[in-house]
Amino acid sequence: MKLDALYSELTLKTNAKLALVVLDGLGDIATLGQGEMTPLEAAHTPNLDALVAGGAAQGRMIPVAPGITPGSGPGHLALFGYDPLEFQVGRGVIEALGLGLELKAGDVAARANFCTLDAAGLVTDRRAGRIATEVCEELCALLAKKIKKVGDVEVIIEAGKEHRFVVIFRGKGLEGPLTSSDPNREGLPIATAKPEDPKSVGQKKTAKAVADFYKVALPLLAKHPKANGFLLRGIAHQPEIPSFEERYKLRPACLAVYPMYKGLAQLVGMTKIEGPQTIAEQFQRYLAEYDNYDFFFIHFKYTDKAGEDGNFEAKKRAIEDFDAALPILLEKRPDVLAITGDHSTPCSLMGHSWHPQPVMLTSAYSGSDKLDRFTETGANLGSLGVFEAKFLLRYMQANAKMFDKFGA
Amino acid sequence: MKLDALYSELTLKTNAKLALVVLDGLGDIATLGQGEMTPLEAAHTPNLDALVAGGAAQGRMIPVAPGITPGSGPGHLALFGYDPLEFQVGRGVIEALGLGLELKAGDVAARANFCTLDAAGLVTDRRAGRIATEVCEELCALLAKKIKKVGDVEVIIEAGKEHRFVVIFRGKGLEGPLTSSDPNREGLPIATAKPEDPKSVGQKKTAKAVADFYKVALPLLAKHPKANGFLLRGIAHQPEIPSFEERYKLRPACLAVYPMYKGLAQLVGMTKIEGPQTIAEQFQRYLAEYDNYDFFFIHFKYTDKAGEDGNFEAKKRAIEDFDAALPILLEKRPDVLAITGDHSTPCSLMGHSWHPQPVMLTSAYSGSDKLDRFTETGANLGSLGVFEAKFLLRYMQANAKMFDKFGA
Repeated sequence: MKLDALYSELTLKTNAKLALVVLDGLGDIATLGQGEMTPLEAAHTPNLDALVAGGAAQGRMIPVAPGITPGSGPGHLALFGYDPLEFQVGRGVIEALGLGLELKAGDVAARANFCTLDAAGLVTDRRAGRIATEVCEELCALLAKKIKKVGDVEVIIEAGKEHRFVVIFRGKGLEGPLTSSDPNREGLPIATAKPEDPKSVGQKKTAKAVADFYKVALPLLAKHPKANGFLLRGIAHQPEIPSFEERYKLRPACLAVYPMYKGLAQLVGMTKIEGPQTIAEQFQRYLAEYDNYDFFFIHFKYTDKAGEDGNFEAKKRAIEDFDAALPILLEKRPDVLAITGDHSTPCSLMGHSWHPQPVMLTSAYSGSDKLDRFTETGANLGSLGVFEAKFLLRYMQANAKMFDKFGA
Repeated sequence: MKLDALYSELTLKTNAKLALVVLDGLGDIATLGQGEMTPLEAAHTPNLDALVAGGAAQGRMIPVAPGITPGSGPGHLALFGYDPLEFQVGRGVIEALGLGLELKAGDVAARANFCTLDAAGLVTDRRAGRIATEVCEELCALLAKKIKKVGDVEVIIEAGKEHRFVVIFRGKGLEGPLTSSDPNREGLPIATAKPEDPKSVGQKKTAKAVADFYKVALPLLAKHPKANGFLLRGIAHQPEIPSFEERYKLRPACLAVYPMYKGLAQLVGMTKIEGPQTIAEQFQRYLAEYDNYDFFFIHFKYTDKAGEDGNFEAKKRAIEDFDAALPILLEKRPDVLAITGDHSTPCSLMGHSWHPQPVMLTSAYSGSDKLDRFTETGANLGSLGVFEAKFLLRYMQANAKMFDKFGA
């Protein structure tokens, strides 16, 4: 990207400390019957309010593109300053990260579902009747015990929830993406996973490994009444993403609790700091690690969970819990602090959405938008306007005085 | 550019008069300790207020890209409707324009610094101890007297402030850019300025002219105790920029006091109107020239100067001086009037910044955003939103009814 090249050219190394605090799924929409307030508006947030009163710029961010609802992958890549349309991460890789698996460069990961096959080998249930997680774990343990390798390719199998699991293929010269082996509807046989680029030697090698895996795995499952087959989707290698540290001249650390977010941070080369379980502990650890890094990504999950559950009160309480812990972070106030979500998860939608998430940014140079609070409706009036989330990191760098002037 | 081509295709010639009034570095940020006001907010501006009350659209403009702080060159090119990433002007050209030098098509200009060399020819001070401007003028006069040409290439030398000067190479087939001869740190010899594109014949010819210039110039300086060498940077030719008049179907005139802004206007082919020294005189001259042009670029420097000095009171007063003169302009009110900055120069930063500058646009068709005043915080609420500065001229054309409908 021409613009990314310009940013790189202008980037200076400074001593500034930057913190990106992500309340997952923070954004919401004013909901009738809830006093037409969002959880952020309804929450009691004295510490956020004080932060805003001290001077902050606000705005709203489009995670990917107008109307597009992102998953956690694109949502976070954008927050890390990477164009989520340019840097796409396969579903298999995301699932593997979500299970806390360590991916190595060149690994190909696939998201797998157990399925039910009839005597003719046709798929009769693409989710194997949503078998219990324990059954899934047993079957995965069986497969993992019997299959360590196919040819010279190492195979790693990890159970997920219900019918879901992950398969990682590790070996020299492997490459994705492959087409899915999921026929996408019942009544058809398992499809053959094929190279998306027929000329790619690496994809051909991976396709052979997948076929070989099917050959040894299917007989092991044959007698199971429901889960006697499986489908692989999102078969892709870990993408090459430019290192965060090189791209921004910042030593980055990740303070997240859930594996998925640690994994996404790891994808761009952040150091994972393990241990903290609560937001207060995460902030405490930030204080302890303050001198060791320049950029802190701090992830808070519970706003998204409550939104997914459609639980307005729980989302409001999660925000209040977060607010109560915030003074710990401010004991060593970062030079640049941004607080936002990776996307909206409106309670009324019970899922991720496309609604621009609110963002607040405070630094010695952020100025003040003279708003009383940090809310969706307030952010509509802020000086940052509505902008693409991938630019937040650039604004953070600007506020850290990390950019040389462009042109004379 | 696809979009530029569309604009051109839709552009109609009309009799409208358009005025773009630029208060250099106008934008600022609300600063604690100043009642959290910006200079524009703190200033007493009855005439601007009346203009807004009469109906105006407001918004904020990103000069180049989110977080990027522009120099005057990119800042103004954007205001003139040219994408500052597409049309880049070298530092040598900008310096030459700033000294009031006339550049001809094909001229290659370099920004030069006197420097100090030790006996081995290594740079010991890249700025020659910041010699006095008079010394710089003497040395430039000496060089200019002794060196008129190198080979068939004419050389023009003009002193700037302190250790700075400009060298222009004029001759057939010259082309930039060349790499800098500045080694960028002390302890190294003067570098050789080389073609950035090794295949370019024009760049090779220019590199030879630069080398020849060094050969004759260095001996002339050899005995000076401090300024016995010089470094050339931003060695580039005047870029080819499509003519403003052809692009917009508007006859443009420039009413600026400082050479840099006259030069930038000249780059896009505006006619420079010489004479006026104060904003009142500039507006008077606008009245006198009203029938002779369709587009007036009127530049006011003192907001930027005060911002660079970190002088809040002076910036506020500069805005008030401007406001006091405004009724002169309104004696013949242009059909479309835009008032803005080329970038922000916040007093608290004492320099240019990335913060979007406020803009107001008034015409019979601008509508009213129902705001009381023209301020940064008010502009956040305006109907123009936050947009790239390069589109302001298109909005001005639209308000002048200069665009045919797109599609049926």
